Amino acid sequence: METQITKLLGIQYPIIQAGMVWVSGWKLASAVSNSGGLGLIGSGSMKPELLREHIIKCKNATTKPFGVNIPLLRGDADELVKVTIEEGVKIVFTSAGHPRKYSQVLKENGVKLIHVVPNVKFALKAQEAGCDAVVGEGVEAGGHNGADQITTMALIPQLVDALEIPVIAAGGIADGRGILAALSLGASGVQMGTRFAATVESSAHENYKKRILQAQDNDTVLAFAKIGLMRMIKNDFAERAVKAERDGWDEEKLKELLATKRERLGIFEGDEIEGAMEAGQGVGLIKDIPTVEVLFKRLLEEYYSALNRLNQISKQ
Amino acid sequence: METQITKLLGIQYPIIQAGMVWVSGWKLASAVSNSGGLGLIGSGSMKPELLREHIIKCKNATTKPFGVNIPLLRGDADELVKVTIEEGVKIVFTSAGHPRKYSQVLKENGVKLIHVVPNVKFALKAQEAGCDAVVGEGVEAGGHNGADQITTMALIPQLVDALEIPVIAAGGIADGRGILAALSLGASGVQMGTRFAATVESSAHENYKKRILQAQDNDTVLAFAKIGLMRMIKNDFAERAVKAERDGWDEEKLKELLATKRERLGIFEGDEIEGAMEAGQGVGLIKDIPTVEVLFKRLLEEYYSALNRLNQISKQ
Repeated sequence: METQITKLLGIQYPIIQAGMVWVSGWKLASAVSNSGGLGLIGSGSMKPELLREHIIKCKNATTKPFGVNIPLLRGDADELVKVTIEEGVKIVFTSAGHPRKYSQVLKENGVKLIHVVPNVKFALKAQEAGCDAVVGEGVEAGGHNGADQITTMALIPQLVDALEIPVIAAGGIADGRGILAALSLGASGVQMGTRFAATVESSAHENYKKRILQAQDNDTVLAFAKIGLMRMIKNDFAERAVKAERDGWDEEKLKELLATKRERLGIFEGDEIEGAMEAGQGVGLIKDIPTVEVLFKRLLEEYYSALNRLNQISKQ
Repeated sequence: METQITKLLGIQYPIIQAGMVWVSGWKLASAVSNSGGLGLIGSGSMKPELLREHIIKCKNATTKPFGVNIPLLRGDADELVKVTIEEGVKIVFTSAGHPRKYSQVLKENGVKLIHVVPNVKFALKAQEAGCDAVVGEGVEAGGHNGADQITTMALIPQLVDALEIPVIAAGGIADGRGILAALSLGASGVQMGTRFAATVESSAHENYKKRILQAQDNDTVLAFAKIGLMRMIKNDFAERAVKAERDGWDEEKLKELLATKRERLGIFEGDEIEGAMEAGQGVGLIKDIPTVEVLFKRLLEEYYSALNRLNQISKQ
């Protein structure tokens, strides 16, 4: 397959594994890159020196391109960027913040910069800041989401029309049909999170992976609109958060409820009651925990089978 | 084009115009059917005898199949169903309620019954009740939405996997790329609302059509979670509703704010301040008010152009 994104990143398939806290270390990222996609190390749950270790291990595990995801709101984002450049990583995905601050230093070091955006306005800012592409992330995605709550189906074509740089679609994509749909909308690639969180190589806790398999279409909720939207699988914690919001709790009380380490508790320690088990609405499509290699083979089969159906429907 | 839906409904293209209050009378519905899609008369804003008039006019304006949308929560739904059968309409779309009550009488009269659903659970119930197909409507759609807030991208493949009857996709689809994406996900047709609301034949007020043209990707909001979610274009009324919700207003106070006739005020009378201007997140894609005939031609061109791009990307 060949798109603007496969050419930009030097990969075989336009399939990117999202950088996810407590899920995507070197093991998952290198497996994805070895399968022909782009693996991302999620630095959101790493101190700078731990990120360095993961980058070094990833370089040993694959000769293919891989990248690092850096959440720019982190207090030590400077350090994370520095380590990434020092270790010679050539692809950086940024999220949660403005990429302008780092675009020059990254470009000077030959790094391709891609920023995650939830609407057209931020996408135009990313393009102006010199980004090489954007990830347009719909509100169906797991984890943190933009306040406008725009969905993938509505967002992607509007980004494609507004931008000159290529668009990667994220949110609700969990199989080959979703990849085909995203490319239909004009995207040049996809980023998938939850689907890769439930693989053998994901470093998430088994309890978390098991909850992904059990969850149905209506088993995720959005909460914390006032302090930063987060999508997660329903559990005691999530339902308390939704109720708090409905009852009109203020920012301070909501921050107390969220506290810190809810993501670590849910995803890495596997606390099914008190943890934030972040996942997207595609969870209902996920029924097993394959290796990344097996998953890639299946995604491509599903993709081409759906494309053949399209061509049959659409006699030209 | 040929899908399970074109065959079921006897239409040329699997493109259905949603039944919309104050927007889709006989004029819009017959124009869509004459262009090869399926037009629906939206009975939600009609008394039974007015519905009868619209059906009679629609029969005079087209020899092609058309249908009626009936919101089942209406107090006089019995009457609307009776008029529809008496006038020999052979396609009924139901929404907002359970189709079981009417499925037998409709089927005895040779009517194809299609129900609008927001999740897998209600879709399975519709299938059990004898529906011939479902419309899976994502939360990006304009107007009333399901409480689970599942998006089109996530919902459609999960419905396709769960059901034996065909699935029509709705929500966020406003051009040919969206149609192609929906079919990629496994749908056998699409239902489009907002796009058809901004056509020459739509009976909505000019102010409302103009707001659709102005609105961007992030210009709609969801409100009234506690009493029934509604998506509309941001204005004074909509922003008051969102604020009320954040402040934790109870059901009674919210019902007072919504009152009645907000939809009539916004869509039919064109009150840009106090009316509910229902629209989906695809509004940002809508830049003109074409005739239905011109719109159909364009949708098909966009569809085939996006399909050609897919085939180029995906050398097999």
